[in-house]
Amino acid sequence: MCSPKVMHCVQERVQREGLPGMSRRSFLQLGAAGALGALAASLVKTGGVARANGKLKVIDLSHVFGTKIPTYLPDEKPKREDFVTVERDGFYIQRWIYTEHAGTHVDIPAHFIGDGKTVDEYPAELLVGPAVVIDISEKAEREADATLDMRDVEAWERKNGKIPEGAIVFMYSGWDARWDDPIAFRNADASDVQHYPGFDAETATFLIEERKVNGFGVDTLSLDFGASTTFDAHYAILGRGKFGVENVANLKQIMGKEAMVVVGLPRWEKGSGGPARVLALV
Amino acid sequence: MCSPKVMHCVQERVQREGLPGMSRRSFLQLGAAGALGALAASLVKTGGVARANGKLKVIDLSHVFGTKIPTYLPDEKPKREDFVTVERDGFYIQRWIYTEHAGTHVDIPAHFIGDGKTVDEYPAELLVGPAVVIDISEKAEREADATLDMRDVEAWERKNGKIPEGAIVFMYSGWDARWDDPIAFRNADASDVQHYPGFDAETATFLIEERKVNGFGVDTLSLDFGASTTFDAHYAILGRGKFGVENVANLKQIMGKEAMVVVGLPRWEKGSGGPARVLALV
Repeated sequence: MCSPKVMHCVQERVQREGLPGMSRRSFLQLGAAGALGALAASLVKTGGVARANGKLKVIDLSHVFGTKIPTYLPDEKPKREDFVTVERDGFYIQRWIYTEHAGTHVDIPAHFIGDGKTVDEYPAELLVGPAVVIDISEKAEREADATLDMRDVEAWERKNGKIPEGAIVFMYSGWDARWDDPIAFRNADASDVQHYPGFDAETATFLIEERKVNGFGVDTLSLDFGASTTFDAHYAILGRGKFGVENVANLKQIMGKEAMVVVGLPRWEKGSGGPARVLALV
Repeated sequence: MCSPKVMHCVQERVQREGLPGMSRRSFLQLGAAGALGALAASLVKTGGVARANGKLKVIDLSHVFGTKIPTYLPDEKPKREDFVTVERDGFYIQRWIYTEHAGTHVDIPAHFIGDGKTVDEYPAELLVGPAVVIDISEKAEREADATLDMRDVEAWERKNGKIPEGAIVFMYSGWDARWDDPIAFRNADASDVQHYPGFDAETATFLIEERKVNGFGVDTLSLDFGASTTFDAHYAILGRGKFGVENVANLKQIMGKEAMVVVGLPRWEKGSGGPARVLALV
């Protein structure tokens, strides 16, 4: 699907063509530090203090982590119980019981790779980067098992410029609209094969090797498309020491905007990943 | 300890005196948006792309969330077990069992207040703000049950200017150096009364009402000093709809720097708080 020739033609095209959207392009091409500069500049342009009471706007890319959320294995829903309550004990604490890959959560190399880094060993600086949101919602509407492939990257770069080093690249498929209906979100057929979009593995490899991105995100249950049995995107991403966020919410709200994403993944000991708060600063 | 007169004398003094440290003062007085602008400007000043490969520096204010960490109730340590492993199953996932107030974690109003907001209802924008780190380590060395009081706020503002709206105010007591020794961190006496520093409740109230801060953080097990039986700081903070982060790490690394803090608290359903990743962008 993505030959080395295709990979490089994207770069060549970007170098060759003087395309529109320069403000956004320059934002992205500067990487994280430059992006923040542009972000501050845009705050000044829009009045700064006047906008959102002088505060950065924070957009929440996270779903609530609850007991009825869609999960990859339908029986593996998180459980919670009262440990103490204000009424009985004067203060309130819950106890949680759950497996790590539920809700808006991160996959870290150790999830698939025997000697891969666990969460507590994973560098914090990789969890922050400018957001690149690639929209494949039209394709996903036609074909649930669609993948974000080189044509989508190429189309995005034609419009916005080269994906910057350190970016976190998100697939927006429109799937988060199904979140409150776990059966529709999981979208399993009569044989319990799931169907939803994901990343094409060679494209993920291109983004890591040729664009030096920090990580990935999807608005579905898996970095791979639902029917995958080989988990090629997982191996491509985690095998190269990168991370992926699954069940990301509200990507439409940052699409086309200058956003810095912070993946707030608690430092789970020996974690293969785990629940996280994903926030975008715009 | 903190009369209305004391509260206002701090403001008056700041207005009256033209004190040094203007760059840092202007950073802080601009609030979050301005702070980001100053942050970007400082990146430009220091070479931007040259510094940290063109990336923001990320400082991790979080401890590892593990099974042997210090906890308020010594028997309530988090538990984890393998759910599946790469060797046996082809991929690796842990199951976690824990109560919410362990590790670097957040207290949210519902922790103490019957009708207080739970984590899933709490506004994301309050979880981001410029860091103000107030050093009480000398006092804490003399007296374990020391509190961060109005004199500390006054001293900080004399040096740095008025604490900005939307700030997250951290107490640095030096206590995180004890983290790897749970007995020393908890520092309980023969009657199992704990001894470590915390916030003075009236000072916390001043910071909320007169400085409009977003939240608080401590490098100890509790917002209150260890021997407190009335939890006045908890009531002052949570009762006013604000949050507190406990067991914060590495505050010394951001002390005196321009840092934007992101409290990555997963959206725990009906949560009274919970484990979080706290990251500072400098």
